[in-house]
Amino acid sequence: MAAKQSPFNLDQFLVSRTEAVNRALDRFLPSEKTKPATIHKAMRYSLFAGGKRMRPAVLLAAAQACGGKEAAALPLACAVECIHTYSLIHDDLPAMDNDDFRRGKPTNHKVFGEGVAVLAGDALLTQAFEIAAQANGWPRYSHQDLILEIAKASGSLQLVGGQVADLEGENKKLSVAELRYIHERKTSALLCCSVRLGGMSANCTAAQLKALTDFGYNVGLAFQVIDDILDVTQTSEQLGKTAGKDVTAQKSTYPAIVGLEKSRKIAAQLTDKAFAALKIFQGRAVALEALAEFLLKRDK
Amino acid sequence: MAAKQSPFNLDQFLVSRTEAVNRALDRFLPSEKTKPATIHKAMRYSLFAGGKRMRPAVLLAAAQACGGKEAAALPLACAVECIHTYSLIHDDLPAMDNDDFRRGKPTNHKVFGEGVAVLAGDALLTQAFEIAAQANGWPRYSHQDLILEIAKASGSLQLVGGQVADLEGENKKLSVAELRYIHERKTSALLCCSVRLGGMSANCTAAQLKALTDFGYNVGLAFQVIDDILDVTQTSEQLGKTAGKDVTAQKSTYPAIVGLEKSRKIAAQLTDKAFAALKIFQGRAVALEALAEFLLKRDK
Repeated sequence: MAAKQSPFNLDQFLVSRTEAVNRALDRFLPSEKTKPATIHKAMRYSLFAGGKRMRPAVLLAAAQACGGKEAAALPLACAVECIHTYSLIHDDLPAMDNDDFRRGKPTNHKVFGEGVAVLAGDALLTQAFEIAAQANGWPRYSHQDLILEIAKASGSLQLVGGQVADLEGENKKLSVAELRYIHERKTSALLCCSVRLGGMSANCTAAQLKALTDFGYNVGLAFQVIDDILDVTQTSEQLGKTAGKDVTAQKSTYPAIVGLEKSRKIAAQLTDKAFAALKIFQGRAVALEALAEFLLKRDK
Repeated sequence: MAAKQSPFNLDQFLVSRTEAVNRALDRFLPSEKTKPATIHKAMRYSLFAGGKRMRPAVLLAAAQACGGKEAAALPLACAVECIHTYSLIHDDLPAMDNDDFRRGKPTNHKVFGEGVAVLAGDALLTQAFEIAAQANGWPRYSHQDLILEIAKASGSLQLVGGQVADLEGENKKLSVAELRYIHERKTSALLCCSVRLGGMSANCTAAQLKALTDFGYNVGLAFQVIDDILDVTQTSEQLGKTAGKDVTAQKSTYPAIVGLEKSRKIAAQLTDKAFAALKIFQGRAVALEALAEFLLKRDK
């Protein structure tokens, strides 16, 4: 890559962006005391449970690569984090993945009960659109574009569709193509949407948007392949959530279908494609490059 | 009222508007064959389960009162119906109201299972924003205004907040004020939003929007008081859903707190207020007036 990669500090980037996103989320969401208090406590419990803020991070990094301002990107970063958190709360429900722990803490329904957990997810999904509608419109990208971008990535053809296909794939032996179909929707869709929204918030060109789309799609797939790998190679303590669940649930995963080594190679190839997509930015996408490396090397 | 009330045919209005809304919903939603088919079957099962389309009807009637065109209001009418249907699917879940029947048919989770029912609700909520974003913007009301209107009426302070308060109010003796707090959120919020969106789709004046807000708020409250009344006075067959549930669940209702006669008086008073709000339209709100009368006289 043509790059001035030297002085970029990813840790600093992640810490400062996470803090900015947390402050903005705190401003956008009703306080824990706002009536009815239970729902706001439940929404905030999962939203501030120590998530990695990976989607906001790639969104803000994409905005930076396109020369945009953080203030313009922040509402959209908060919106995608609300979507992500809602999807985790609902995925963890007994009727779905039935997870008791998430990020080392009891899942939402274990603390607030199933009814409130369903509603907290509903409220966060709704909140995402309320926040996104408060973002600025830009010359090339209107509110209509931004809302459609989020709705399409989150709807029945993408995020929700992936979770349905995942549910239906349990206890079945899936092909690699079927597994990729699920991963594209469960993970790539929202990650890709996040990167694209970052570019849109910076009023990016069509060529830049195309590059960000390729980047997001491939990083998203790599991210999920690695999730599958970590589930079989790490302990629950290391992950902060129940390890080995995929094996227990007899879920089809990349390691189960193609083996661990091949899975690692696939993840590395996807990341290479992601890096290649960033060439157009001529070294201004250092944050996105560092994030992609981080996602490939992570151990939890 | 100063009105030319004579030749208005409500049945005809409801039939033609319901058909128009159903056709538009069918266009907006992915077909049952679209992959993953399960989620689209589940979404369409509840969306086309014979609902009264009351929110779309008041929305279209409000647009008419303000001189707007049906084509401009239809996407918003579909959006609020998606929101309403999602809220019913989630409210019916075992973790919430635990209803086996709705509109005379098995509830979504009885047919598709709890996991898919949660996801079908999520997908319909998301679809609502996708559809609303495809509506036209108008001189006075931007896409931002329309999305915010729907998000606020549906979020943790209104629709979802009402359901939380309702859940928490079970097995407790509520005051009339607490009960009204729940009704304002569970029913009035989305009904009022529907009426307002109808006005906005017709590029209404601020005075018209204020009148529609008063109308929607009062009709919404009346609608819910009548729901409470019907639950104790009608059979399951008449309602097409389980009757007497409020009593069984020891829910606080208007009849339980103030008695049946007083409840009927309250409903009538609220409807009078709603009618009074329509004076500003000088007889052009015949459809809204007829709908309000219909809501008060309904027996299911």
